Amino acid sequence: MKYNIYVVGMGPGAEEMMTSQAVRALEESQVIIGYPVYLDLLTERFAGKEFLSTPMRKEAERCRMCFEEACKGKKVAMICSGDAGVYGMASLMYEMSTEYPDCKLTIIPGITAANSGAACLGAPLGHDYCVISLSDLLTPWETIERRLRAAATGDFCIAIYNPSSYKRADYLRKACDILLEQFEESRICGYVENIGREGTKTVTCSLRELREAQVNMFTTVFIGNSQTELLEGKLVTKRGYQL
Amino acid sequence: MKYNIYVVGMGPGAEEMMTSQAVRALEESQVIIGYPVYLDLLTERFAGKEFLSTPMRKEAERCRMCFEEACKGKKVAMICSGDAGVYGMASLMYEMSTEYPDCKLTIIPGITAANSGAACLGAPLGHDYCVISLSDLLTPWETIERRLRAAATGDFCIAIYNPSSYKRADYLRKACDILLEQFEESRICGYVENIGREGTKTVTCSLRELREAQVNMFTTVFIGNSQTELLEGKLVTKRGYQL
Ligand SMILES: C[S@@+](CC[C@H](N)C(=O)[O-])C[C@H]1O[C@@H](n2cnc3c(N)ncnc32)[C@H](O)[C@@H]1O
Ligand SMILES: C[S@@+](CC[C@H](N)C(=O)[O-])C[C@H]1O[C@@H](n2cnc3c(N)ncnc32)[C@H](O)[C@@H]1O
Repeated sequence: MKYNIYVVGMGPGAEEMMTSQAVRALEESQVIIGYPVYLDLLTERFAGKEFLSTPMRKEAERCRMCFEEACKGKKVAMICSGDAGVYGMASLMYEMSTEYPDCKLTIIPGITAANSGAACLGAPLGHDYCVISLSDLLTPWETIERRLRAAATGDFCIAIYNPSSYKRADYLRKACDILLEQFEESRICGYVENIGREGTKTVTCSLRELREAQVNMFTTVFIGNSQTELLEGKLVTKRGYQL
Repeated sequence: MKYNIYVVGMGPGAEEMMTSQAVRALEESQVIIGYPVYLDLLTERFAGKEFLSTPMRKEAERCRMCFEEACKGKKVAMICSGDAGVYGMASLMYEMSTEYPDCKLTIIPGITAANSGAACLGAPLGHDYCVISLSDLLTPWETIERRLRAAATGDFCIAIYNPSSYKRADYLRKACDILLEQFEESRICGYVENIGREGTKTVTCSLRELREAQVNMFTTVFIGNSQTELLEGKLVTKRGYQL
């Protein structure tokens, strides 16, 4: 394999929440490719690099750009927020890589929003948990409903990504209604907006309140399991230690 | 609150997989407390710090040590492998903190084994996923079975922690048998031993082969969902983009 492409998870946003491995991969690269919002977080720190992008929803084109630039002999990094493998570009990059036998991928993991957001709220993912996206751009809504029901049946803690967008303003409400089939309205929940970025906002609430909440696309939502408690303002899911 | 205690996720092991926020928290601390195996990874890099520990299973004592040292006026960090909130000490620290009104906790997230291990195998967690521990020290085995069944019903990708120990050598086999109630034997799986540490070993296999695998306690196991494929040796769970 002649060309290496880094697929880098940058964590939630703040540079100090990147790993040094991720920083080094970007420093080694000549071209950094990503979604515009994430590139903006990097242009100052990595001044001098070539930054390339495609608009939202043009993910396949963005991935192809990585391979095309790499085949020109440039050192390329594809940047993703959070972890590169969690609703990030890693899987699409692997799919496409079969067309580019000269290119090899190196995935650099990062802290995904479930874990960075959990740290803001306390310890809501202290036991078995599920990560579910409410985006139905690529996934039928029936599959999302089925997963929400299964997560509730399994008494998992739940982290919800992509809880909302302009076209899907009522999806979080729909998700809460499905969870309310099995959970009490008082189930302990919370959400975090702009984790590791300017304007971080953390909210704790009941499932009933969450159903009415206005959240945006830079928000990760947490639903506690049956053991989750609110301790001095923090969401805490006990593992069961005897104190 | 007079005293701050850091609860730090150090990632899988390699220093370059820690965030700079985590490194800074340890540098600021006078006392670093943790499970002996993890402290060993840090003693050289953070030479000059006071390192304190308790044996395995003495988690509550280890947490109490943090609060007691902090109340002496020392700057304390509790160190956890991976993420501090995922089967780590964050939730127990919060539970205990109600006894120490002068102490405040700051959770520093880290890359959890599900995400660092996924990067070694390709992109197995490219869609909705569950994280499940097979340890029944604190969780009844019936709950673990119920969660495995629910994860299978929801067609989640699954990351399994604590797949084995000397006392529970056959737990992974029992878990596979539960998944085989719903999945084909050919379901694509993999596991990673010693992520980010010396002797990293990655294996891809079918669910039938996983059932026979000998894994140890430093292993994280991955079960693909119905869409997961093996592409040129990598586990890839597609999100559904059109190429
Ligand atoms: C396309 S997904 C990308 C996830 C990313 N790869 C990760 O691992 O965190 C976008 C969703 O991730 C969550 N998210 C990512 N970064 C976030 C941040 N800094 N603050 C809050 N939520 C975030 C939100 O739910 C958002 O809608
Ligand atoms: C008590 S849990 C701690 C998890 C940790 N807090 C995390 O977020 O990764 C221990 C289990 O995590 C997984 N694990 C943690 N570090 C690992 C590593 N470096 N390589 C492989 N598995 C690891 C294994 O499944 C192990 O049995």
